[in-house]
Amino acid sequence: MEQRLSLVTLGIADLDRSRRFYEALGWQRSNKEAEVVFFQAGGMILGLWSRDSLAEDARVPVAGEGFRAIALAYNTRTREEVDTVLAEAKAAGGTIHKPAEDAYWGGYSGYFADPDGHLWEVAWNPHWTIAEDGSVRLPA
Amino acid sequence: MEQRLSLVTLGIADLDRSRRFYEALGWQRSNKEAEVVFFQAGGMILGLWSRDSLAEDARVPVAGEGFRAIALAYNTRTREEVDTVLAEAKAAGGTIHKPAEDAYWGGYSGYFADPDGHLWEVAWNPHWTIAEDGSVRLPA
Repeated sequence: MEQRLSLVTLGIADLDRSRRFYEALGWQRSNKEAEVVFFQAGGMILGLWSRDSLAEDARVPVAGEGFRAIALAYNTRTREEVDTVLAEAKAAGGTIHKPAEDAYWGGYSGYFADPDGHLWEVAWNPHWTIAEDGSVRLPA
Repeated sequence: MEQRLSLVTLGIADLDRSRRFYEALGWQRSNKEAEVVFFQAGGMILGLWSRDSLAEDARVPVAGEGFRAIALAYNTRTREEVDTVLAEAKAAGGTIHKPAEDAYWGGYSGYFADPDGHLWEVAWNPHWTIAEDGSVRLPA
């Protein structure tokens, strides 16, 4: 696992309200899909996504203290690397919440939690390119 | 406010346990202070800090669902810019948790929350330099 972060996804109750908040701060989204909002944030990405969808995707109950409505993400350079990184996380003492599986958006992803329960998605996204320096850039 | 993220701070129960977890993933810390662990993660930073200290710093009760044990941070280029960004966040519909004040580590910082309660620290740190492209690099 390289020492980098690709994406922070915030779990959101009302996507339009949250998008307007970040736009009012001067941010401009990079994508057009209705169900998710991506902001290019330097060499990484800030995403807004339904809180319930994020919990379901990460296999965490949405109620209670276990779900923090936020996930960090590490994007791999290859599909195979997803399984490798999840195995590394397990060996390091992490908890696998979701073994990697094919994602509806065309990629392959799973989730682990660190010792304090902070969620990391590990994802291969064939639509996103990881630069040599580890940065991720969305199409303008 | 520029469209970038400087730091993600994870709230941690046992700092040594968490540091060992990330080191077991192959990450190397950039700092030597006992009370906080910083990892350079591409053009931004991942920090590990006491969960209780983070809650206290952000003026959020540590118990209950209100505190997610994680904060995003936006580092400014000047001290004055902290107040400007907090005012922008308030005008955009955010909640000011902590008006900016002098920090024990020599900087100046405050916190706002977005419409879903996601915490952002806005900080001026005289020891960290923000590059022209918005990236932050810790001393090696």
